[in-house]
Amino acid sequence: MNACGVVVEHNPFHNGHYYHLQEARKQTGADCIIACMSGNFLQRGEPAILSKWIRTEMALLGGADLVIELPYPFATSHAERFAFGSISLLEAAGAETFCFGSESGKLDDFLSTMKEFERSHNQLDSKISSYMNKGFSYPKSNAMALTETMVNSSLDMSAPNNILGFEYVKAARLHGLAIKPHTIKRINANYHDTDLGAGNIASATAIRKALFTAKDTIRAYIPETTASLMDRSAVEWHSMSWERLYPYFKYKVLTATKEKLCSFYQVEEGLENRIMNCVKKAETFEEYMTLLKTKRYTWTRLQRASLHIFADAGKEQMKSLLRSPPPYLRVLGMSETGRKYISHHKKLSPLPIITTLSKYSHKMLDLEVRTSSAYYHIAQKNRSSSFNEYAQHPVFT
Amino acid sequence: MNACGVVVEHNPFHNGHYYHLQEARKQTGADCIIACMSGNFLQRGEPAILSKWIRTEMALLGGADLVIELPYPFATSHAERFAFGSISLLEAAGAETFCFGSESGKLDDFLSTMKEFERSHNQLDSKISSYMNKGFSYPKSNAMALTETMVNSSLDMSAPNNILGFEYVKAARLHGLAIKPHTIKRINANYHDTDLGAGNIASATAIRKALFTAKDTIRAYIPETTASLMDRSAVEWHSMSWERLYPYFKYKVLTATKEKLCSFYQVEEGLENRIMNCVKKAETFEEYMTLLKTKRYTWTRLQRASLHIFADAGKEQMKSLLRSPPPYLRVLGMSETGRKYISHHKKLSPLPIITTLSKYSHKMLDLEVRTSSAYYHIAQKNRSSSFNEYAQHPVFT
Repeated sequence: MNACGVVVEHNPFHNGHYYHLQEARKQTGADCIIACMSGNFLQRGEPAILSKWIRTEMALLGGADLVIELPYPFATSHAERFAFGSISLLEAAGAETFCFGSESGKLDDFLSTMKEFERSHNQLDSKISSYMNKGFSYPKSNAMALTETMVNSSLDMSAPNNILGFEYVKAARLHGLAIKPHTIKRINANYHDTDLGAGNIASATAIRKALFTAKDTIRAYIPETTASLMDRSAVEWHSMSWERLYPYFKYKVLTATKEKLCSFYQVEEGLENRIMNCVKKAETFEEYMTLLKTKRYTWTRLQRASLHIFADAGKEQMKSLLRSPPPYLRVLGMSETGRKYISHHKKLSPLPIITTLSKYSHKMLDLEVRTSSAYYHIAQKNRSSSFNEYAQHPVFT
Repeated sequence: MNACGVVVEHNPFHNGHYYHLQEARKQTGADCIIACMSGNFLQRGEPAILSKWIRTEMALLGGADLVIELPYPFATSHAERFAFGSISLLEAAGAETFCFGSESGKLDDFLSTMKEFERSHNQLDSKISSYMNKGFSYPKSNAMALTETMVNSSLDMSAPNNILGFEYVKAARLHGLAIKPHTIKRINANYHDTDLGAGNIASATAIRKALFTAKDTIRAYIPETTASLMDRSAVEWHSMSWERLYPYFKYKVLTATKEKLCSFYQVEEGLENRIMNCVKKAETFEEYMTLLKTKRYTWTRLQRASLHIFADAGKEQMKSLLRSPPPYLRVLGMSETGRKYISHHKKLSPLPIITTLSKYSHKMLDLEVRTSSAYYHIAQKNRSSSFNEYAQHPVFT
């Protein structure tokens, strides 16, 4: 069987994601679509509005055959490491290609930019450092250095999906992976659009925003399966956001010493003092972030540091987990095709394939379960029967 | 000026406490009544139903002249250390006597028992160890050993206020303190009574119980000042209990590794495993405790261990703070008499006297502020303006 991988968050699954999965299958001719999906916490350092189990079901009903989990440390990392974790997992899962959406839509743009990158990356590194020394954030310094250095590149490096796509291509190339890139031109929505707009495709950002303000307006932009899963989910689960985590986060910061705060991943260079002061003043997450934001750090970087405090993710632990690629393939769900694929791939897989949590033990998985338990504890509406990650079987459609 | 000290929790202040303060002044002829009061967390390992500031005001309006805070590590310790912390602070505050309520009411009972204790305490220690090895809790082993060993004692060692009173007398004697004991016979209520009963004196336990079930019935048992302070407090604050802490406690345990849980004070001998398992199953604190309870540990001991997890009170930190007597006199409130007393005592005081938090720094005080901030965060009804311990001046009546 011929498999194609995609990297997704599906927060929530919408028509653009549906198009991506259908086109990936059509354009690569794959028999099996493997989605590498972030768990309950996402790349921007925030909780997913719906749990990984509901999002897995959405993905399977929308065209994926197999959903595997990108572990917490990679799922909540900057683009480069997020891309490395995802593409490594897709390679380990036996995908021959990975397919990503981009503003460009032309693979040659990415390949020629990659060549130019390899020629000039020493120069690039020194430019990035120099911008960062001037007080710019890493993503901003990186984008400016790329634009200046790679003058022959035809890829627009200010477009967010081009940047992310380039990280995927770079990860595969620099780590010598056999998996081949493929790109699809994105239609209609831009990544950060906050309005729903015309047509039937909108960004996940716009859909999430509408979800909290004008829920009915999103129906045109999501498949019927997503809509009915969201309705079903709403009976038992809150739509999650940082605001729901905030009372717990605040409690955590209030009871911590400065030394303790400093022991969490990405809390450094005096950030612990700012976090402590802002938490004391702010009664909502929005207030807290607005007080915390400086030119030095991006909003996302600050959300990530805060999330690691919430998740009790220590520096040493995270650094040690991030030293190697993800060590296992955890299956969150599969279609009948996915099941056949897995039963075939099992014999060849370089990594253990996990479908039953209790049969496998790893510090990465422990961290996943701990952070997920906190997520369920806060998201569950009726707490009389606690949701237990250990009792959850992969979703089967 | 002649001062008499009392050790109190006032949870909440009731007619029995009023009687205690009035009689202490009358019987010792003191000009100034100094109350050493636990802060927001109490000896049974639970939050006070009302904050220390409201309870301080109740104490001042009910007959105390000066309220000083018993720091968290001592306030949440077993009787022996609780007594040592309190009596040391009263000595440092310059009290010539301390006055406690007891079932016995005869000081000679305590003094003769103390003499017998000093003669036989080696024998006592070995009896306690032997009972504990059989699986009995410390308080149970201690009570059985005392009854068996001190056969000539006329003090009923099964009465809770006699036991606590004996700990006060013992602390003063064994640590060579100059402060002199005085006891008053308690009237009507027994310490652990859960019903309000006849007369106008009931136990704090019975009053707290009624507070959550039949609020109006308690008016006969509390002074008018307590009643109106409770009404005022209810506008801004929840009545606190372990049930209110439980969602935060559960989040804390769910995100902790076993090693981390084990690092908290009094979590040892595999208790971390039981705590983790029980938390996962229990949706209320009552459920959690019922699952957790074994013959080996008392309910109070388990509440204390859980409280230290909630408060992020680590083993090393707590052990280091408990190595010496409380290092400062923190004033929570004073009457005009108390103010005069303090201004006179300032020149003689062996310990720094703290009225403004920001002017003094100590790890013990940091811990007090952190645990208190968590208490206010959870107790405050309207969170738009966070209560800040640093901005709070001593109560002055």
